[in-house]
Amino acid sequence: MKTKKSSIDPRPLPDRKNTAGRMNKEQPYPMIHAGQLVMLVSPKGKRYFRILDPSEILNTNDGQLQMQKVLENGFGSRLDTHLGKTYTVLKPTLYDLIKSVRRRTQIIYPKDIGYIVIKLGVGPGSRVVESGCGSGALTTALAWFVGDQGRVYSYERREDFALLCRENLEKNGLGPRVEIINKDISLGFEQQEVDALFMDVRTPWDFLEHIPGTLLPGGPVGFLLPTANQVSTLLEALEQGPFASVDVLEILVRRYKPVPERLRPEDRMVAHTGYLIFARLSTGVPDSSFELHLESQAEGDVCEP
Amino acid sequence: MKTKKSSIDPRPLPDRKNTAGRMNKEQPYPMIHAGQLVMLVSPKGKRYFRILDPSEILNTNDGQLQMQKVLENGFGSRLDTHLGKTYTVLKPTLYDLIKSVRRRTQIIYPKDIGYIVIKLGVGPGSRVVESGCGSGALTTALAWFVGDQGRVYSYERREDFALLCRENLEKNGLGPRVEIINKDISLGFEQQEVDALFMDVRTPWDFLEHIPGTLLPGGPVGFLLPTANQVSTLLEALEQGPFASVDVLEILVRRYKPVPERLRPEDRMVAHTGYLIFARLSTGVPDSSFELHLESQAEGDVCEP
Amino acid sequence: MKTKKSSIDPRPLPDRKNTAGRMNKEQPYPMIHAGQLVMLVSPKGKRYFRILDPSEILNTNDGQLQMQKVLENGFGSRLDTHLGKTYTVLKPTLYDLIKSVRRRTQIIYPKDIGYIVIKLGVGPGSRVVESGCGSGALTTALAWFVGDQGRVYSYERREDFALLCRENLEKNGLGPRVEIINKDISLGFEQQEVDALFMDVRTPWDFLEHIPGTLLPGGPVGFLLPTANQVSTLLEALEQGPFASVDVLEILVRRYKPVPERLRPEDRMVAHTGYLIFARLSTGVPDSSFELHLESQAEGDVCEP
Amino acid sequence: MKTKKSSIDPRPLPDRKNTAGRMNKEQPYPMIHAGQLVMLVSPKGKRYFRILDPSEILNTNDGQLQMQKVLENGFGSRLDTHLGKTYTVLKPTLYDLIKSVRRRTQIIYPKDIGYIVIKLGVGPGSRVVESGCGSGALTTALAWFVGDQGRVYSYERREDFALLCRENLEKNGLGPRVEIINKDISLGFEQQEVDALFMDVRTPWDFLEHIPGTLLPGGPVGFLLPTANQVSTLLEALEQGPFASVDVLEILVRRYKPVPERLRPEDRMVAHTGYLIFARLSTGVPDSSFELHLESQAEGDVCEP
Repeated sequence: MKTKKSSIDPRPLPDRKNTAGRMNKEQPYPMIHAGQLVMLVSPKGKRYFRILDPSEILNTNDGQLQMQKVLENGFGSRLDTHLGKTYTVLKPTLYDLIKSVRRRTQIIYPKDIGYIVIKLGVGPGSRVVESGCGSGALTTALAWFVGDQGRVYSYERREDFALLCRENLEKNGLGPRVEIINKDISLGFEQQEVDALFMDVRTPWDFLEHIPGTLLPGGPVGFLLPTANQVSTLLEALEQGPFASVDVLEILVRRYKPVPERLRPEDRMVAHTGYLIFARLSTGVPDSSFELHLESQAEGDVCEP
Repeated sequence: MKTKKSSIDPRPLPDRKNTAGRMNKEQPYPMIHAGQLVMLVSPKGKRYFRILDPSEILNTNDGQLQMQKVLENGFGSRLDTHLGKTYTVLKPTLYDLIKSVRRRTQIIYPKDIGYIVIKLGVGPGSRVVESGCGSGALTTALAWFVGDQGRVYSYERREDFALLCRENLEKNGLGPRVEIINKDISLGFEQQEVDALFMDVRTPWDFLEHIPGTLLPGGPVGFLLPTANQVSTLLEALEQGPFASVDVLEILVRRYKPVPERLRPEDRMVAHTGYLIFARLSTGVPDSSFELHLESQAEGDVCEP
Repeated sequence: MKTKKSSIDPRPLPDRKNTAGRMNKEQPYPMIHAGQLVMLVSPKGKRYFRILDPSEILNTNDGQLQMQKVLENGFGSRLDTHLGKTYTVLKPTLYDLIKSVRRRTQIIYPKDIGYIVIKLGVGPGSRVVESGCGSGALTTALAWFVGDQGRVYSYERREDFALLCRENLEKNGLGPRVEIINKDISLGFEQQEVDALFMDVRTPWDFLEHIPGTLLPGGPVGFLLPTANQVSTLLEALEQGPFASVDVLEILVRRYKPVPERLRPEDRMVAHTGYLIFARLSTGVPDSSFELHLESQAEGDVCEP
Repeated sequence: MKTKKSSIDPRPLPDRKNTAGRMNKEQPYPMIHAGQLVMLVSPKGKRYFRILDPSEILNTNDGQLQMQKVLENGFGSRLDTHLGKTYTVLKPTLYDLIKSVRRRTQIIYPKDIGYIVIKLGVGPGSRVVESGCGSGALTTALAWFVGDQGRVYSYERREDFALLCRENLEKNGLGPRVEIINKDISLGFEQQEVDALFMDVRTPWDFLEHIPGTLLPGGPVGFLLPTANQVSTLLEALEQGPFASVDVLEILVRRYKPVPERLRPEDRMVAHTGYLIFARLSTGVPDSSFELHLESQAEGDVCEP
């Protein structure tokens, strides 16, 4: 997993902004470069993700599609397979990628992922540890945000899930940014001074001892737990230290039927995925002033959404 | 704002991962490099953000602090001002930055920002247009995620808000990634083929006509609106096209008191910030098959959180 | 519907409290009186409701059951049909009755009914107008609470719904307290000075003019509407008067899996049934001081659950 | 508390419906009878509750008001004090009464009360036990619904709360329906075969043993608990029997600003008052078929609001 030679490059080329004026009759659709991630949508809405390799011939349910044509025609174009079925070429969003994750486990959803990433401070260049990877929805998002300069270390005890996660990452092209470690975390993590750490495991309190050696002092750690009992047990363990600024919350998404003259919420909604718990690794200094202050700060947050 | 010479570099240096073993007695705290963003927390919890310049002397309410010392001592260290007050050195998260945004407007909150970023597919290298910037909370987050290779174009009609936003971005070090354009968007946007577009304005329906010339075909667009009436009006306008995959939702965060033996939700919560509306620019092809398919896809999402 | 001679009597006899000590070996189960409402639960959980008539033979899916035996054995007893299947005799709750309403329309749910009844001040002796009755869930609840001295006037334009509602009320024994009026309310209501009024119709604003002649001055009126657009239109009409103390709200129920060692919310929940709107008929006095004061009062309620 | 001679009579007289036509010039406002509950609203919105006694002179902050005049003028009328301040005469709703409860404890709110009453099947004639009474908000509601033929037995260990509750009930006129028992329930309840039982105490699991001797077999019992830990402990105790049909839920009210052209939720809401737990006393028969069936029934309710 050390080589990045096949890495995708979702970024525009440096001179991209100078090409903005080229949407003319000769080349109506925005250019795609080899190595960019593309999404191909079938007439029935099925989605294919590919890191653009112009020499590839994509085999779809509706016939073959030459990726060279995708490169030539650009985002937004519509291309026919050799059987005459029309596919649309799009630049995928992270939401598209997460939706396409093949699942054999409960996944972490966009509503939770978005908040996790902000609380953990994940961004271009971040080095992040997560455990376990499950089907790889959060892994996909972390890999998306850390960029080519960052790195995701994903621990997964079960080999079948590790393989599934790897498979999903190969499909969506973010694999090169992720190191999947098929290992039990009761043995600890191999990394040091990572910027953030996330645990989606059943008994996170058993592994808290490994955090100080792995996470940057003062760094953010997050947990997802489905039951209130687990939250209580974790909070108790976090109180033993060395942690500060503990936050517990849940996020609810309520969708509406998008009908202008009859606007109303959907009849049903997802009522629970899990509780999110966040804390900050304390700086290990004997006196507790830092921790206390961050906590009083957290107090002030009580009503912040 | 065109020069990037003072750009922050929140990314670890390329050889960072080889330094993981250096937490020894001689240098107990992880190294910081000049140009990195640091957060200094006062004994009372006040936070200062600085792009590390070793020659700077920081004037705090508690006396002076030499930034050279911050560089030498690293993340997690605790340093005294010349008046003997102890400050803690931390690597800030995006949540820290958003919390520190000085506000003169209603800001967009982390709960909404996280979802927006995922739906819009913002990541390293993205080129994003937003309007208006307000106090700059979303601007800060977009700048965080696009990285040094990306770019945020932020339109703001009111000069006072444009200045406030700029000031907040200077304080948190993300300014070089953002171009603030103090202009009324009724005149349109100057960019073309941007990856995503977000509107936080009172009458977004008045400006939909400018989206097709600015956004990549098939690209994602988002809106935040406080009232149900505005949502209805916008949905009506979106139905006139060229848009597909329309989504309306709201996000609620419910916080818990982090007391292990008495776990319970906070007594009160923020009940409303705004409705989020998302759509995708259609590809402009005469027949509507693409739009229909994406919509039927969205139908299947009804219960996805 | 004027005769009350077959009225149920769910109330204990006046001397009931003196019989509390009679749970002895001779008669282990609490007595039932003829005319009381009983619920018979089949081995498979199917529920039958009957106003106890000792001469009746109940035909169930599991064979015949003599109601004389129900009277003799009392609440909590278990009786065999002639085919040897065991039924349990229970005193039904209002929740039991509402659950058993046969539905051909969207019904109003217990979460909403409970709040409606409190806001409208429905209780023993109340005279209440509702429109329309639909399947009769709210009708059942209103009839339950007004008691034998009260009266529910239920308007329903569609004859099929009026029949269904009547059928449900006959089944649960509350029929004698309800007058179903199969009439379009555009012609107005026949009652005067009723204690409360509730409208579950599509365009309530068309019928506001009939309220002052029907409802007690200062009396409470409630509405249920599924869409935000309808709420806006109704609020606009209510502002034309003569109404005060307008309240708009929605009620959400979140259920938990009752597992002590893994307490967590259900995965899904009902996200929307309707918006509830309440107001008070103003007293018709020229100066507006009364209305203003009640409204400022309502202001203070903003955070009351 | 045994005498009912001063009992209020909120019910209309039997011939009430024949008086509906009398709103003429001579007597424009609906009649009030001695013994009925009336609410008098001051010019500043202050509310006074009185069981109408025509011989009483009410001393308000704004001067004296003769109750004889209230009787003569009826609901909806406006009367002047001897200092010339105008009061409005209204028939109070239960919501009015609950709002006016003087509080020295956390009260149970209308959102929860409405659901409790429906699940417990409280109605005219019910005999209900509650413990403890606290300030008396739920007590007020139970007393309202059971009517003059029903009875509320309210246990309260602390004498100061028992007095406060009694005081609130005297003020709102429902006192004659309530027996307040200033006693620790570890000694058990004095009643037998009551229709329903509600516990709002810190450790309800300590008192479950007293329920079978008090509640009707198959009867409903409810609990309110503020923390998830308490819910777990109670569920564990309920599993030891003899209880069935266990339900755990919470109720949320979300209020809207009643502005037609800018309809939107209030900025903040009450996020938590308590978890509600309901169960049914099993019928004590050795085999568990009844309980199992009711539970599987409950399973089917999962998505019912």
